[in-house]
Parts: sequence; structure tokens; C-alpha cells
Amino acid sequence: MGVRERVDGFCARYGLRVPILAAPMAGACPPELAIAVAQAGGMGAAGVVLDGPEQIAEWMRRFRDGSDGPVQLNIWIPDPPHDDPDRTAAAARFLAGMAEPGPEPPSGPDFAEQCEAMLAARPTIVSSIMGRFDAGFVQRVHNGGIAWFAVATNLDDALAAQDAGADAVVAQGMEAGGHRGVIDPASAESTVIGLFALIPRLADRLDVPVIAAGGIADGRGVAAALVLGASAVQVGTALLRTPEAGIPERWSAALADLDPEGTTPTRAYSGRLGRAVRTSYVAAWEAPDAPRPAPYPHQGRLVARYRRGDPGKVDPVSFWAGQSAGLARAVPAAEVVTSMWEEASALLA
Amino acid sequence: MGVRERVDGFCARYGLRVPILAAPMAGACPPELAIAVAQAGGMGAAGVVLDGPEQIAEWMRRFRDGSDGPVQLNIWIPDPPHDDPDRTAAAARFLAGMAEPGPEPPSGPDFAEQCEAMLAARPTIVSSIMGRFDAGFVQRVHNGGIAWFAVATNLDDALAAQDAGADAVVAQGMEAGGHRGVIDPASAESTVIGLFALIPRLADRLDVPVIAAGGIADGRGVAAALVLGASAVQVGTALLRTPEAGIPERWSAALADLDPEGTTPTRAYSGRLGRAVRTSYVAAWEAPDAPRPAPYPHQGRLVARYRRGDPGKVDPVSFWAGQSAGLARAVPAAEVVTSMWEEASALLA
Repeated sequence: MGVRERVDGFCARYGLRVPILAAPMAGACPPELAIAVAQAGGMGAAGVVLDGPEQIAEWMRRFRDGSDGPVQLNIWIPDPPHDDPDRTAAAARFLAGMAEPGPEPPSGPDFAEQCEAMLAARPTIVSSIMGRFDAGFVQRVHNGGIAWFAVATNLDDALAAQDAGADAVVAQGMEAGGHRGVIDPASAESTVIGLFALIPRLADRLDVPVIAAGGIADGRGVAAALVLGASAVQVGTALLRTPEAGIPERWSAALADLDPEGTTPTRAYSGRLGRAVRTSYVAAWEAPDAPRPAPYPHQGRLVARYRRGDPGKVDPVSFWAGQSAGLARAVPAAEVVTSMWEEASALLA
Repeated sequence: MGVRERVDGFCARYGLRVPILAAPMAGACPPELAIAVAQAGGMGAAGVVLDGPEQIAEWMRRFRDGSDGPVQLNIWIPDPPHDDPDRTAAAARFLAGMAEPGPEPPSGPDFAEQCEAMLAARPTIVSSIMGRFDAGFVQRVHNGGIAWFAVATNLDDALAAQDAGADAVVAQGMEAGGHRGVIDPASAESTVIGLFALIPRLADRLDVPVIAAGGIADGRGVAAALVLGASAVQVGTALLRTPEAGIPERWSAALADLDPEGTTPTRAYSGRLGRAVRTSYVAAWEAPDAPRPAPYPHQGRLVARYRRGDPGKVDPVSFWAGQSAGLARAVPAAEVVTSMWEEASALLA
């Protein structure tokens, strides 16, 4: 099948004019960004891992006020509970050397309630990262006319997702900003696969479409991903500097002309590995005498507590960034999507 | 400039019909492989880091007996001498737990003599990795009608090479098999940039052409690299299973259908970081209680000594492999090059 035919088929199936999906970035996906992407012909997205059922419903209400286009809601599959009190205590002492702690953060939302809220919101896509939905939920998703996209960073995870009923696999390359979606969290540092290897590997073995994610921030990246075998792309960092994303100015400024090696995989924000700007806070955790960050979710709760105090040297937000952050432009999101696709179309046969 | 125009200009400049260069793989680049690649319209190559002046001259004589096509000779720029006797002793004890040592290997060739031999051989290209040639040698290269290609893994190294007179930069992505060409050897583990980010970053900032290397093993990869901004590609692992490469059967078998995460960056062979198959020998050095490999070149000399004894668990050769090794085919090299370019051409506008 030719590239155009593959891409056109995917677009027709999901109501897209442009094979570009906004990445679901928890905390940086206001409805305004999703609306702008959908209006430009792509797919909007929300990362709802931090949101309770009311917030999920409210987000979708606001999205639907602005668009009847396609939209994706994404959630993390929870890890089995795990703590290592000594490691968590050491991480807390390290943070205490930086800043004054604030009060304990409130508990996070309940996963089962989030799942019900996603179903009730009736998005085009429900997507998973860090694991797979159980068979019963997959059946309810499909019964609701919703498709399931599963994030994978290697072939094993991708095949397991396909076997479990995933309608498409988001192939997340090592270039990607934000959390790494490998299902075994301990192996995140050792399954570091670039899109040049990952896309063909998955495209050759899967029956479902592959959506490429990671380091794609202009039309060249879109065209490259599609010729490698992807049916569409998912872009996150490329949209972070748009006015609709509304991220803090300090984060946006850190992305401007950022070198790829100015980003680094770190567990310093959440305890799970994600690619972020190498800020002084992140670099502090890379020092030879720094402790290992606490296990997920304890590191994230510690960081939240210090953010609620006197932040000092603790970054006020997590400065997630992919390796192509330097290509991200501070222009309206619709312009990003439109120009990416125009440029990619010109490059494709 | 369009992709075709950029690629055609590069091909015309270097006498290529096909924008595919064989990677210079020391120990796996017999003249037969270079001849086959050049006859298919690409550029042949030898990695001469292990070769003395007579071997360099002999390699070129045999190449010229079979081809008048373009050819590249590549050398490592030597590091300043460095040892850490405690680390080297610990690495030696670890190896002694695996196998019986053999006699000390002979000393390696002299860099200055290698450089003279490369000039005398009159290749199309002299290329460098791990550093830069000095200004005097660059001048002599150019006076001889030879071009200088410099390997870079990030923009800083690429700009420095261009400033020093490099005629093109080989952008080596993290996907690449074999040694990583970062100029500061200590930073090899932290400048891990995928081609999706590296090619546009360099193509946007350099005045000289960019040649993409790493994880490119079929026409999809060629087309993707060219649309991202490369003027040509360099392929290594994709040629390793060809009969002309003549690598040991065990190495070739290890590449067949290899998953990207079946490769890993390791210092276990030479002391410098390179991507290889995660054999049991390589995995042994990743164990939590394993020592750090000795610094370059001491680790390589230790490994050579144990290979000269009873190899036991020491790999008899270094099983270098890029992340797309699973795409490498056991067919003649000319067929690899020709089919890569036919497939890429069909994908390009």
C-alpha cells in the first residue's frame, strides 16, 4: 500500500483532514488547544491522568462547545502499589536541601471513576499509556463506538496491545518529550528506540495502524514518519509554545532553540522516566552524589509538596520537552498544524 | 532547495549515482564490499583505524583493481593518553573470571603514518570520527583533491568540524551500530540524539551537506533521512549480512530479526561507547556488580588478549549492530544498495 493510500484510509476512518494528532499532555492540553487542532483538520487531545470525573466531563463540554471534530482522551494505566521507604526518605531529604516543604497534596483521582468519565464523554479515541485496559473495559469502549489507541515503545508492547484489541498503536520514539510509555517501568532506561528503527519494526509486524510520536515538530518530521510506515503522527512539544497551550512563560522560553541534548530522560519529577529540559533542578538529580528519585508515585507527591511550599530550586512545573523542541514555534496552533501538513504534503510522492 | 535537487547536487559532486555510502566499519569492510557498493552507484568505504600503512595501501590497491568509483577511508582521531590503573586491573580481574588470557596483543599502528598512507591512497573522501584533523592535514587533504567528511553526533561538534574545513558532516544518530562518534568521549552516554531530531537540527544550521547515519537499513529509512534534510545516507549494519562483508556466521545470525532493544550501547569491547548486540558477554558487563570497563584503549587491549587465549565467554569478535539490524538482509551488497534506492525513489516526490 502506498503512503497516500495508507494515510488517507486512516484519515477517513477517524474523521481527519490532516494526519496529525495533538499529543495528550496532562496539564498542557486546555480545550482551546484541542479545538484549534481539530479545526485545522487534526485531532484534539486531553491527558486526563490528573483529572477527576467532573474535570473530564467539563473539559469535553468545553471542547464540544468549540468543535465537533475528532478528539482523544488519554489515561495512564496505574502501576501496582509500590514503595521503598528508604529511597523515598532519601529523596525527601534531598528536596529539603533545596526548599521548604508545603502541605501534603490531595490524593489523586480514582482510576475506575476516570474510566467511567471517559466513556461518558464519548470521545473519538480513548488511549492508554504505561499499560493496557482490561478486556471488559475494551469491550465497553468498542460498544460505545469509541476506538482504543495504545502507546508502545517496542514491538512486544505493541503486539500485546494489538492482541488485547487496540485499534491502533502509538509508536513512541526515544525522541519524545514527557513520560515514556514502556509498560514495564523498570525497563524504561533500556528500551530507548529511535523512530527510524521503531516505526518500520512495528509497521512490518502489526495489522493495526501505527501512529508515530516523538521528535516530530515540522513537516519534514511528518513526511519522514509517514514514509517509514506510520499512518499518522502525534505531536506534543511542537504545540507547547502555541498561545492555546498556555504554558508558563519560563517553560516556553526554555524550549526556544533548545538543543536535543538540552533535554534528558529524568525521574526527578514523578518517579517515572520522562524526557524534560535539563533545568538546574533536573541536573541536580543527575549529580553523582544525588539520591535516586523516589518510586512513582511517591516522587511526584514529594515534588508536589515542595511546589506547594517555597519552591526555591524545585521547578514550579515539569519542563517536559522532546528532542525537536527547538523547532516548536510560538504561533497559533492551527498555523502549526496547517503548515506542518502543507510542508509534509510537498515532500511526499 | 527541494530534496531531489539537494541529493542530485551531492551525487554530482562526489561521483555517485545513488546517495548511499557504505559506512566505514573497521574489521568488516573488505575491498569486495566497497567494490560492490561502488558498482551499484554508491560509495565504498574502509575503516582503517586498525590498519598500518601497508594494509591501507593494499586495501586501496585491491579496491582499484575492482572499481574506479568513489571511496572513503575513515580513521579515529586518537584520544590523549589516559589510564586508570585501578579500573584497568578490575576489568582484567573480571575478564579473568571468564577465560584464560593469551599473549599481549601487538601495538596498534601509528596515527601519523596512517594519515600519510590515507593521503597516498588518494581516496575520494578522508573521514574522521572521535575528533578533528589539524589544520595542516586538512590543507594537505584538500590540496590532494580529497574531501573531508567529519562525523558528528550533535550540533556543537558539527559546527566545529565545519569551521575546521569539513566538506560534509556525517550526522550519526543514536540508532547507529558501532562506535559513537562524539568528540568528548565522556559525554557519549548523554548525547543520545535520534535522527528525527539530529538531521533537521544540523541541516538548518550548517552550510555543508549532512549525511545521515544510524538505523537506516531499507528504502524507507533512506527516504525519511532525505526528507528530513540529509543529502545522502551512510549505511553499515544493513550491509553486514551481505556475502561481501564476510563477517562470522555467529555475528550474522545474531542480526537476523534482531529487535532494536536487542542492541545496547556498551564500553565492554573497546572502552569507548558503541552500539552492539546484547550478547551474554555484553550483558555480563551490565550486571550491577560488574566493574566499569577499562578506559580506551586499555579495555580493547584486554579484550584482544583474552581473545588470543581461550575465549570462553569473551565474544570472539565485537558484535556491532544498529537499531535497525532486523532489516539487514543476507543478499549481495549491490542488491541491498539498488533496492534501497529504488524503494526510496518511489517514496520521494
